[in-house]
Amino acid sequence: MSGTLYGLGVGPGDPELVTLRAVRILRRLPVVAYPAPLEGASFARSVVASQLSPAQTEIAIRVPMTRSLAPAQAVYDRAAIEIGGHLKAGRDVGVLCQGDPFLYGSFIQLFDRLAPEFPTKVVPGVSSLTACAAAAGVPLVARDEILTVLPATLPEAALEKRLKLAQAAAVLKLGRHLPKVRRILKRLGLADRTTYVEHASLESQRILPLETVDSASVPYFSMILLRAGGREVR
Amino acid sequence: MSGTLYGLGVGPGDPELVTLRAVRILRRLPVVAYPAPLEGASFARSVVASQLSPAQTEIAIRVPMTRSLAPAQAVYDRAAIEIGGHLKAGRDVGVLCQGDPFLYGSFIQLFDRLAPEFPTKVVPGVSSLTACAAAAGVPLVARDEILTVLPATLPEAALEKRLKLAQAAAVLKLGRHLPKVRRILKRLGLADRTTYVEHASLESQRILPLETVDSASVPYFSMILLRAGGREVR
Repeated sequence: MSGTLYGLGVGPGDPELVTLRAVRILRRLPVVAYPAPLEGASFARSVVASQLSPAQTEIAIRVPMTRSLAPAQAVYDRAAIEIGGHLKAGRDVGVLCQGDPFLYGSFIQLFDRLAPEFPTKVVPGVSSLTACAAAAGVPLVARDEILTVLPATLPEAALEKRLKLAQAAAVLKLGRHLPKVRRILKRLGLADRTTYVEHASLESQRILPLETVDSASVPYFSMILLRAGGREVR
Repeated sequence: MSGTLYGLGVGPGDPELVTLRAVRILRRLPVVAYPAPLEGASFARSVVASQLSPAQTEIAIRVPMTRSLAPAQAVYDRAAIEIGGHLKAGRDVGVLCQGDPFLYGSFIQLFDRLAPEFPTKVVPGVSSLTACAAAAGVPLVARDEILTVLPATLPEAALEKRLKLAQAAAVLKLGRHLPKVRRILKRLGLADRTTYVEHASLESQRILPLETVDSASVPYFSMILLRAGGREVR
């Protein structure tokens, strides 16, 4: 009998925004894995640190933040082999995921490699999307409105085309891409319908008008919310 | 000192998919409100029923399910007055919201009416969007992919235009609109990239290929997920 792979959404960062199920499963897992930077602590682990015990085996998946995908792919290949070893030996393994595992989660990399071979369960989490909206007091969509969720890492032309067509939108993964996104929103006359949110639900949370954001200090975990505001579906 | 209005996301239905914060706040609230049908039990209340106590004042907001918006608007007007009365008297009021309060939540109706006047906090919840993806084992979006979230209640032409342009998509609120959405997805050659999910996270959860769904028995709380599957951004 092989073990089960769990993708555990731990929410946006506040330890209280974890679900009862994630806590219950996490406490009984013999092996816990999580993404981490090349040096330093894992954010996902920090969210649920108080739920972990020294008896658990921990696997830090240290992912290089490079523009090329190849180095990260090699890391996930090796992590899948290590996790697969525990699963084959009958040990359940939980992978901690900031936000939700299936909404831009790096867990998808491990899911694609391991789910064809091992029983896999995903525990959904509070996503950064709804956490940012809640923090900012900005409803995402109501009634018949359409929401477009898109990463700021897209090329400028693709982003502009999509934002032009969008009714409500959330632009994720801002980081160094903020000037590009701000430029587009200004050109489209949409900048004043937006709210900027960084580190939603954490002590360091900041909510600002887009025009006042200093582009030199924008973290990867930040978002621009565009309200529908009665705009027509075009 | 007026009380605080809380929008409490209680997740998709499984009582374990509630956050620690929603539980903590809910237990200490003197007044708890929730949407309910004209007759019968409230779904949102049923999710957290075990956390409620007889000492709490409950307000069932009985919303008629009509195509015209006016009757529901009148109900929310009256509910806002009743809730506002408690807030003015210094009592905190929590409004239970299936899924997340700001993603198609009826809480937005009360937020719009009460947030300008009273301190308001929103506790994000696990949305039906991520719960359906988790239940079906279908990642929503990875890397640079774009997700379009749209309600099946839109007119056929608007839906078709958006789905044609979409990379990954989630079509919510299916109910009696399923035949229309299925027709569009077939015309666009996308039907075989989809998964149908109803009642995600509940005992009654069903996950089916779209073509096998009986359109006579589709609940409002159901969703079609369209995988990006390497399609280009157009």
